[in-house]
Amino acid sequence: MGEALQGLKRTIMCGELRESHVGNKYTVMGWVQRRRNLGGLEFVDLRDRTGILQVVFGEEINKETFEKADTVRSEYCIAVTGTLVKRESPNKEIPTGMVELKGEEIKILSESETPPIYIKENLDAGENIRLKYRYLDLRRPDMQKIFMIRHRAAKIVRDFLDENGFLEMETPILGKSTPEGARDYLVPSRNYPGKFYALPQSPQLFKQLLMMSGYDRYFQIAKCFRDEDLRANRQPEFTQIDMELSFVEEDDVIGLNERLVQKVFKEVAGVDVKLPIERMPYKIAMEKYGSDKPDLRFGMEINDLSEVVKDVDFKVFQDALANNGSVRAIKAENCAGMGRKQIDKLVDFVKGYGAKGLAWVAYKEDGIKSSIAKFLDEEQTKVVLDKIEAKVGDLVLIVADKNSVVFQSLGALRLHMAKELGILENNNEYRFVWITEFPLLSYNEEEERFQAEHHPFTSPMDEDIQYLESDPGRVRAKAYDIVLNGEELGGGSIRIHDIKLQQKMLGFLGFTEESAWESFGFLLEAFKYGAPPHGGLAFGFDRMVMFLAGTENIKDVITFPKNQNAFCPLTEAPNVVDDIQLKELGILMKEEEK
Amino acid sequence: MGEALQGLKRTIMCGELRESHVGNKYTVMGWVQRRRNLGGLEFVDLRDRTGILQVVFGEEINKETFEKADTVRSEYCIAVTGTLVKRESPNKEIPTGMVELKGEEIKILSESETPPIYIKENLDAGENIRLKYRYLDLRRPDMQKIFMIRHRAAKIVRDFLDENGFLEMETPILGKSTPEGARDYLVPSRNYPGKFYALPQSPQLFKQLLMMSGYDRYFQIAKCFRDEDLRANRQPEFTQIDMELSFVEEDDVIGLNERLVQKVFKEVAGVDVKLPIERMPYKIAMEKYGSDKPDLRFGMEINDLSEVVKDVDFKVFQDALANNGSVRAIKAENCAGMGRKQIDKLVDFVKGYGAKGLAWVAYKEDGIKSSIAKFLDEEQTKVVLDKIEAKVGDLVLIVADKNSVVFQSLGALRLHMAKELGILENNNEYRFVWITEFPLLSYNEEEERFQAEHHPFTSPMDEDIQYLESDPGRVRAKAYDIVLNGEELGGGSIRIHDIKLQQKMLGFLGFTEESAWESFGFLLEAFKYGAPPHGGLAFGFDRMVMFLAGTENIKDVITFPKNQNAFCPLTEAPNVVDDIQLKELGILMKEEEK
Repeated sequence: MGEALQGLKRTIMCGELRESHVGNKYTVMGWVQRRRNLGGLEFVDLRDRTGILQVVFGEEINKETFEKADTVRSEYCIAVTGTLVKRESPNKEIPTGMVELKGEEIKILSESETPPIYIKENLDAGENIRLKYRYLDLRRPDMQKIFMIRHRAAKIVRDFLDENGFLEMETPILGKSTPEGARDYLVPSRNYPGKFYALPQSPQLFKQLLMMSGYDRYFQIAKCFRDEDLRANRQPEFTQIDMELSFVEEDDVIGLNERLVQKVFKEVAGVDVKLPIERMPYKIAMEKYGSDKPDLRFGMEINDLSEVVKDVDFKVFQDALANNGSVRAIKAENCAGMGRKQIDKLVDFVKGYGAKGLAWVAYKEDGIKSSIAKFLDEEQTKVVLDKIEAKVGDLVLIVADKNSVVFQSLGALRLHMAKELGILENNNEYRFVWITEFPLLSYNEEEERFQAEHHPFTSPMDEDIQYLESDPGRVRAKAYDIVLNGEELGGGSIRIHDIKLQQKMLGFLGFTEESAWESFGFLLEAFKYGAPPHGGLAFGFDRMVMFLAGTENIKDVITFPKNQNAFCPLTEAPNVVDDIQLKELGILMKEEEK
Repeated sequence: MGEALQGLKRTIMCGELRESHVGNKYTVMGWVQRRRNLGGLEFVDLRDRTGILQVVFGEEINKETFEKADTVRSEYCIAVTGTLVKRESPNKEIPTGMVELKGEEIKILSESETPPIYIKENLDAGENIRLKYRYLDLRRPDMQKIFMIRHRAAKIVRDFLDENGFLEMETPILGKSTPEGARDYLVPSRNYPGKFYALPQSPQLFKQLLMMSGYDRYFQIAKCFRDEDLRANRQPEFTQIDMELSFVEEDDVIGLNERLVQKVFKEVAGVDVKLPIERMPYKIAMEKYGSDKPDLRFGMEINDLSEVVKDVDFKVFQDALANNGSVRAIKAENCAGMGRKQIDKLVDFVKGYGAKGLAWVAYKEDGIKSSIAKFLDEEQTKVVLDKIEAKVGDLVLIVADKNSVVFQSLGALRLHMAKELGILENNNEYRFVWITEFPLLSYNEEEERFQAEHHPFTSPMDEDIQYLESDPGRVRAKAYDIVLNGEELGGGSIRIHDIKLQQKMLGFLGFTEESAWESFGFLLEAFKYGAPPHGGLAFGFDRMVMFLAGTENIKDVITFPKNQNAFCPLTEAPNVVDDIQLKELGILMKEEEK
């Protein structure tokens, strides 16, 4: 059992000590990063949240202390009292490197076995062992930096929104399961056997109700839940900066939130975000980048070749054009020399996105090579190269198909090529863009019905309401996403606040009047009593922190994350529970059939 | 469908306008509190979150606007642009009462049916209708004040803890079910049919792990969950201000938190809290007030009569004393005249707390009356009256039993008498007290085992560790509760950070070594790697807001609360879900047997 503090107080943190502190007596507490005996002295690197301090113990300072110091090992938790002195051989690598503490007294607060993972930056250990010993993994300085960044970011967000008239309000975690959206996590009710609460996928309906209630500006840093199969960078529970404002239009929400983003990125990461952030309509984003979250840090934009190839006698092109599709291409600069095998891999790559093939034209110094030379004569090929402004050395990659496939495959190919070519290596840019004018509805061909592109509560654009009946697919929404370096950082919309329009929307989504009332009756009812115009936005806070901390793994920014199977190797949740608990809930488990 | 904003911006909030604004043009937006036609003018009281503003419309200002204003009704949501003028007949009742807005333009943003509840302060409506139309209930100014207070309090707490080196860190909602404590809400796992997550009753284990991880000072305003039958002022989900600190002892946690309390109560409610807050050991609190959350706003303390009645030949007294119990009393001043029926009610009252009876002595002007005159002669009775310092007119109420019953019944009787006598009416005091030196373990006679008075991770006091084996019931804990006006506002403890002591504690609580590892293995394992001394505290944030807002109903401080059956009359959660959802979870429901 370790020694007790018994009134001993820490007087300063390890990482704070500088030359200006020399000559004073301090008590520091922390963990032994390492201890070594050198020239008859014991040197201990002592670590706390703020950094590392060298502590030196010598027989001449205090013999008893010196002998005790000799017994400490890595990760022992100790308290040391001593006088700060200038260091004879400074260590320029660490901020405290000019000084060291002469250890006069030591308490061993608790001992440590050899930890199963190293407590050091940039640990190269398997995910499972890191998660199983998460409390040790979290002890590593690079992890600690991330959670200090996360705290700082949340604080700045809260300060900013408070200054701008927002109230932070909590909404229920035990909510109601609603259709639309992802799969809910369910919570069986004990009072009503057979009935269930659902954990919220977002506080969407509640925040809209708070606007009906006149709270004017609401926000919450809110836990949200989705019981989905976990792709990389998804977690079953995640955190949103969720907000809603009354009496606003798109420009108000966008304007406020870009100031928020500017402040957070400046104060946490020292990144300057120039305002206003560029805005790009969805249609342009798709046509130029094949994506509604375009990475604008590099060009390689998609070109429409439909017009210049419309007379080419090539069935693939003609079929695409005849079916309302298009022929489009990207240009990979200085890639004309790419070998056949490499190009074949690109063909396979776009097939993974639904394209039937990938045509290519290599503008080599010794002439043009092309996979479609049979169909395009030299003149026609030149027209294509001119259209896309290809220079000698460039490789043109062409997809002809229906537009959704063209965009998806060329958008993905563009990112793939940038990665292959190392275009973004050492790129420190933070390229923000607002994507606007999203389609309100998209047609789900499998289910043969429209579905909401954002969610069923998004308002159509005023000028497009006229097409709601005649051409629903044409209607654009008052929706906006904020995209950073090709990742969605947040998104939102102006909401419908009119009962008739909301009912019409739900009708498009396949709800009968009855099922609409069953699922969303309380919202529709609320619209009857003077609902204000309102809109909002939610940022993915985990992703924001990933950007601020410079990590690409969502598990790095969550204290105790789950693995790919939504399992926690540390606590072993989920786990079996007492039969009595299930009995109280009226639940039986199906026998496993495998 | 209402009119659209179409670029119209609100320029100020209703409640902000004062005489200094006169002469300027403003656009305000809000809800019609009422409209009346008076002397050919339309007067509209327009309400937003900040207050009410009178808007006046006249034919001479703008005829079209005037006619439109005539169509608005209560709770219509409107926007008005006009010039602020001084009011001819000021209304001193409201802050904006010196001015009014001359309405030059009006937009009806949305209409309202007649609301099912009045939108006014101090509404006297049934709970069920208030919860069903919660979005209207929340529109009432007194409810809006509460949520502004709640936001403010949370902000101040976060600012204070940030300034004091705390990091706000989120811990999982999808956790593991552990024994001890209340009943968990369970969440079935889809990946592991038959296994369950549990919603946290508190982040206790995670925050201790964060201390092992070296985060030094953690806090979180955290949602917690208990699936218990709901007494008044309990909700299935509630909010804690949860914190944990490393390298601290009791005084550190207490000292920091009383400064936090002082700041919040001063800044939110204008209440001065004098520091240091009084501290009272558990034993004293029980002996003087019969409660570990004593209300110190009034006296009527419990007196021990055991010594002075030890020779009285009254079986009830003698039995109590022989069984290690006691004879104790409170003195109700000026109550000697209480009638027999009233006293009988007091007898029934204490029986509800397990007492077998209640003896009384009335010190009337015309002599002493007593329910135990048969057993106590006049001299013995005088000794009792002297001991309790009774004066003429006082009523002495005596319970003899084992101590737990004596304390519980007299503690409750003391509060009951104070209420009956109106002692606390118009009392605006905020009497804080720290209760310290709680017993570590209490013996559960039904289950014939010890249980943790706080929780299994609380450290015993150093000086009492010696009794752990020989007399576990005697061991006091490093635990502390903060009590305000007889209600527990928060509590915490210094934790065990030694694996052997923790295992011993779990042993007392009936865990085998195996079951201890099964439930808490990850914590025990963490103790092996240099666990720091640590401790913490959690405030009930809902209750804190109740005090700050001056309400006694927890539902008033929660945006969308559940009713007594853990049901939400607004959203109708919990509810049935699709069979496919249950199938995916491998769940069958037992047929209801009723």
